[in-house]
Amino acid sequence: MTLPSPNPIFAEALERGKARRERSGALEYLRLVDDFRGLAKGSVQLPDRWIAGYPRIGRIYRLEQGIRQQFEAPFWAEEKIDGFNVRIVRYQGEILAFTRSGYLCPFSTDRVPELMPLDIFDQHPDLVLCAEIAGPENPYTEGGPVFVPEDVQAFVFDLMRADQTGFLPVPQKMALTDRFGLPTPRGYGRFTTGDWSQLGALLNRLDGEGREGVVLKEDSTRNRRVKYVTRFSGIYDVWIRASDVVELPGDFFTGRVLRLALFVDEAGMPHDAGLSRDLGNAFLERLFESVEKFKRDGRVYHTFRCRFRSQEGAEAFMEHIHRILGHTYVVQRGLEARGRHWVLTFDKEVPKLTGLLHQLFQGAAVVD
Amino acid sequence: MTLPSPNPIFAEALERGKARRERSGALEYLRLVDDFRGLAKGSVQLPDRWIAGYPRIGRIYRLEQGIRQQFEAPFWAEEKIDGFNVRIVRYQGEILAFTRSGYLCPFSTDRVPELMPLDIFDQHPDLVLCAEIAGPENPYTEGGPVFVPEDVQAFVFDLMRADQTGFLPVPQKMALTDRFGLPTPRGYGRFTTGDWSQLGALLNRLDGEGREGVVLKEDSTRNRRVKYVTRFSGIYDVWIRASDVVELPGDFFTGRVLRLALFVDEAGMPHDAGLSRDLGNAFLERLFESVEKFKRDGRVYHTFRCRFRSQEGAEAFMEHIHRILGHTYVVQRGLEARGRHWVLTFDKEVPKLTGLLHQLFQGAAVVD
Repeated sequence: MTLPSPNPIFAEALERGKARRERSGALEYLRLVDDFRGLAKGSVQLPDRWIAGYPRIGRIYRLEQGIRQQFEAPFWAEEKIDGFNVRIVRYQGEILAFTRSGYLCPFSTDRVPELMPLDIFDQHPDLVLCAEIAGPENPYTEGGPVFVPEDVQAFVFDLMRADQTGFLPVPQKMALTDRFGLPTPRGYGRFTTGDWSQLGALLNRLDGEGREGVVLKEDSTRNRRVKYVTRFSGIYDVWIRASDVVELPGDFFTGRVLRLALFVDEAGMPHDAGLSRDLGNAFLERLFESVEKFKRDGRVYHTFRCRFRSQEGAEAFMEHIHRILGHTYVVQRGLEARGRHWVLTFDKEVPKLTGLLHQLFQGAAVVD
Repeated sequence: MTLPSPNPIFAEALERGKARRERSGALEYLRLVDDFRGLAKGSVQLPDRWIAGYPRIGRIYRLEQGIRQQFEAPFWAEEKIDGFNVRIVRYQGEILAFTRSGYLCPFSTDRVPELMPLDIFDQHPDLVLCAEIAGPENPYTEGGPVFVPEDVQAFVFDLMRADQTGFLPVPQKMALTDRFGLPTPRGYGRFTTGDWSQLGALLNRLDGEGREGVVLKEDSTRNRRVKYVTRFSGIYDVWIRASDVVELPGDFFTGRVLRLALFVDEAGMPHDAGLSRDLGNAFLERLFESVEKFKRDGRVYHTFRCRFRSQEGAEAFMEHIHRILGHTYVVQRGLEARGRHWVLTFDKEVPKLTGLLHQLFQGAAVVD
């Protein structure tokens, strides 16, 4: 879908409460807070350009049947990366990065110019780079991929065009990212639905290396895509999030358990004590740490640390996260120049778990 | 609260959709489907007698602070038993047993006369015996307590009176159950809020024996009560229900994980690999069995087996469960006389997990 900008869908969305006005510095924009008329949640209207939201991608739980059912043509396999999704544009001469929800992200906007070369925009000013920003020093999520040992890295995995929905075909995307030296996720090549056992072997290898899985993209105009993740990914997700256990719907956790059980079953891996221990440890290890933290400090929180190129970027980020999460729950701890970066540290409280533990440690009785 | 029968609250509840008319054979009764005007969900109006619902009991997650916060007077500790809750009355000369939801339970009604002596009703015709029916051959839930190796047993843990809410005080209950030889849960005696460490030692012992925990009942007119369960209980609950993982809200499982983490922490038990392995195994062992069952039979189900005194009782039970769960999901497999019992076997399908696995094994992509 190609539509002029301003795109009339946003005006209608605003009227119906499906879009919100946002401001970042001097820039005013609209952001869809729900899917609306074919545009995904997180779509953004800048004064004279709009950017489609990054659509949700379905997930298969069985590789063999999944690829048969989902694809009508050969497909590309690319590494799935555990980070946060941004869309990067050059707008009125400035590089801007928007989160999945459609907020201008002050962290990514600050860092992107040192995470990748951006001269692609000189020749293709209307491109939208869809990238995962991943690593232990990202400001949104704990943890990150095993292959990003510090700070963050960016991985461009899709290209879109402003004022349009839909992705560039994979070969065209590969040609462009290659030519302009953009960092990308590992590509594993092109497969057909008959290549199930090769793909299965690839997934087993990724699992053994502690990698998350793959995104499969049909090599066709409809460019259909699905995700498929490893056993490791299920255990890692539980491990990362069980520290906050009640913060998420319980279905987050049981979904991971089912996912990894079906992976192990399909891969013919053993159902052994090692697997049980890894999963049980994933549920308990960091939860015990949270209980200790609560007993020591009276609250459960996570300390984030991330690097900015500029002090202004860090300050804009703190303002942004305060606005989104509230001042109560996010407390800045430090902002210092170190080498060529400004290092921001802040605590993010885990409010539901803190509140529940507070009640329980006072001896409350809970009816379930 | 004492009110005449028919109790006008039921008529009002019926008008407001908070009560339903039920019939079992010639008996017509009303059952509250929600708490209403001080009566608990599951309260029952028989033609000229009403029976209060069994109230929900809160649960503490920390023993020391919990008993300090919850109790103003000494309290009794009784073993908590993992079965299903019934209220037993003698009405117009017949023994009737109602489930927690207020259904007349054909299974319990059939079996109660051989599970306990009932001459208590000769002298106390207005008593309501609140009992847990537990054991591997119960028709509602899988599993049961370690100390009921086969069939079912009944344990009377509270006494109420018809046409009243509230329980008889614990000492009066104990005197009556003793005098009339009623089977009861183990009693561990009377404690004060200062006896935390003795109670903690008791709970550790119960945990080691694979027992569920305790119900604590204040020795006062307000007769307040709370539950507290062992680490074992958390793991066992996960183990029993993870075979159906998506059938329950995920919070069922994460609640158990939090509960056992707080138990282990308070008891000063080690956070070791054995604990992790037990919890991980609880999530996976029976889920893998369900996946195997699905691959073999195309559906996930559990086979129940239970004994009746009469063929009519078994038939009435099948009619009851068909009406509650639907014909699609419950299939009778056999009903045979064995010794002095009729043995009923039936399969109960796990519809959500069956449906989801059906989709996933066809290769569906799920958006989460």
